Amino acid sequence: MGTEFGRGNAAPLFGAIEAGGTKFVCGVSADPSQGLLAREQFSTGDDPERLLAQVCAWLADQERRHHPLAALGVASFGPLELDVRSPHYGRITTTPKPGWAQCDLLAPLRRAFPGRPIGFDTDVNGAALGEGRYGAARGLEDFVYITVGTGIGGGGMARGALLHGLVHPEMGHIAMPRLDDDTFEGTCPFHGRCWEGLCSGPALAQRTGMAAEQLAPDHPEWDRLARYMGYALATLTCVLSPRRIVLGGSVRKAGALGEAEFFRRIRSELASALGGYIASPHLRAPLLDEFLVPPKLGDNAGIVGALALAQDAYARASRTH
Amino acid sequence: MGTEFGRGNAAPLFGAIEAGGTKFVCGVSADPSQGLLAREQFSTGDDPERLLAQVCAWLADQERRHHPLAALGVASFGPLELDVRSPHYGRITTTPKPGWAQCDLLAPLRRAFPGRPIGFDTDVNGAALGEGRYGAARGLEDFVYITVGTGIGGGGMARGALLHGLVHPEMGHIAMPRLDDDTFEGTCPFHGRCWEGLCSGPALAQRTGMAAEQLAPDHPEWDRLARYMGYALATLTCVLSPRRIVLGGSVRKAGALGEAEFFRRIRSELASALGGYIASPHLRAPLLDEFLVPPKLGDNAGIVGALALAQDAYARASRTH
Repeated sequence: MGTEFGRGNAAPLFGAIEAGGTKFVCGVSADPSQGLLAREQFSTGDDPERLLAQVCAWLADQERRHHPLAALGVASFGPLELDVRSPHYGRITTTPKPGWAQCDLLAPLRRAFPGRPIGFDTDVNGAALGEGRYGAARGLEDFVYITVGTGIGGGGMARGALLHGLVHPEMGHIAMPRLDDDTFEGTCPFHGRCWEGLCSGPALAQRTGMAAEQLAPDHPEWDRLARYMGYALATLTCVLSPRRIVLGGSVRKAGALGEAEFFRRIRSELASALGGYIASPHLRAPLLDEFLVPPKLGDNAGIVGALALAQDAYARASRTH
Repeated sequence: MGTEFGRGNAAPLFGAIEAGGTKFVCGVSADPSQGLLAREQFSTGDDPERLLAQVCAWLADQERRHHPLAALGVASFGPLELDVRSPHYGRITTTPKPGWAQCDLLAPLRRAFPGRPIGFDTDVNGAALGEGRYGAARGLEDFVYITVGTGIGGGGMARGALLHGLVHPEMGHIAMPRLDDDTFEGTCPFHGRCWEGLCSGPALAQRTGMAAEQLAPDHPEWDRLARYMGYALATLTCVLSPRRIVLGGSVRKAGALGEAEFFRRIRSELASALGGYIASPHLRAPLLDEFLVPPKLGDNAGIVGALALAQDAYARASRTH
């Protein structure tokens, strides 16, 4: 019918935005497992109104080239207002990022694409949904997605639903033990030596004077980093009991040490930190290799996750009508 | 109909077992908000077969006095096998408790009450469900229930579903920071100074030589305990983003210091540990008083939770038929 979008002969087309602190990635796809029909990116900058106008114009152009968008998905840096009952639903709330505090991400999209359902969640919940539907956590109802890069963030599912709550998880800011020989006070302006304050890319750079990519494979910092990662992932395992942890972000690539070796060390430290308390074969070798894994969607995790949010918004709206 | 239990004129009657490491509490009720029709308790001991036979006999006697049980609920100490697809579903798994490892809690109930649906979950998820339906977390879809007593355990809901996963949460064993002046190595045989190793009743007793109830209100240990509790609850808040934390167990009563004052200090330490990072009014005074609260069901939390598991099993079975 003419007034229903994406219900023609063609498969419904989805538009998505991965809203990051550095860049906004936009994409359209009818089937994310088959890749994107088009992809574009824009610098985030400090003028949300202008940027969102560019994003809407690009998406509208895609409609003209292909066919109308059936739904949209937005996976964004935060903190976000995710409570649909709140008058501020759809906003970035208290970010220190110039220009972006209290920015309403959804209003311009609603104006540009009236009637189209819009899925909205955190960047890490988006990536979690993408990895759950098309990547490393396929078919699992209880899992965690972590990114360790400029900051540390986590999202995930419990019993098949993305983790929300009072606000949304801020897993990078959990309290951490101190290793005996460690005097580093951490880089987090709020908590000093929380997980992000100890293990993010900037924390590693401040400790060593080098970016992760430049660190020699025998640098002692890799082992310390692996120990802290082990403690943090053990804490997540105790709180959430995930069936899998997908560990993404740039730090995990571990430069000259290599991703495979870094994961091997983190798995070993995770098992040590758990101390054999949780009696599951998935938390011991060899199955531990499938418990803690890198993402499968690579650099597309964010935009594929945002497309998955669009798919879910479309499915919800279809059930309602 | 004659073959359907609890579908007569009377409201369906539920039977429940709160299976603890020290005692098993049994109860029957048609409406837990109105209390129990009958309640009995048995020492746990080291002979599960004999104990479960006593429990079944008591429940069968209740059927004769009232009317047939429509469903049963079991909330148990663990670790438990909660995966309904596992051939070991319904068992206590690796407990060091003599006689109880690999004990199948549900088989004797299935034999004694054929055809009756049985809800099964951890003691803390049971208590969480009870507090969520009838107590301090009424109406919330995302919350945590913590007990601090002989051990520390946690359960809760995310998006309205009890937390399960690979096994089930073991929140008492999260990694903890060390306070500067603290040399205590903790009491946990697996992790030393995890949350349980630092803040459980036995940890407090080992530090001070006294039980919590005997500690003077000006004993410095109360402040240290409150600080550690603040860190642990901040970590849970970062991982799960609960809308409320219900803190139960014996230690929270805080002897001569008093529950209200102990909660006041823990709330203050929780806010300090979060450092203002999560911008929600619920994490600041005065709403923080409603974020961290004691349970409302008191000593009945466990058995009411087990009854709520029975209600849910009954509702699921009714939807299926």
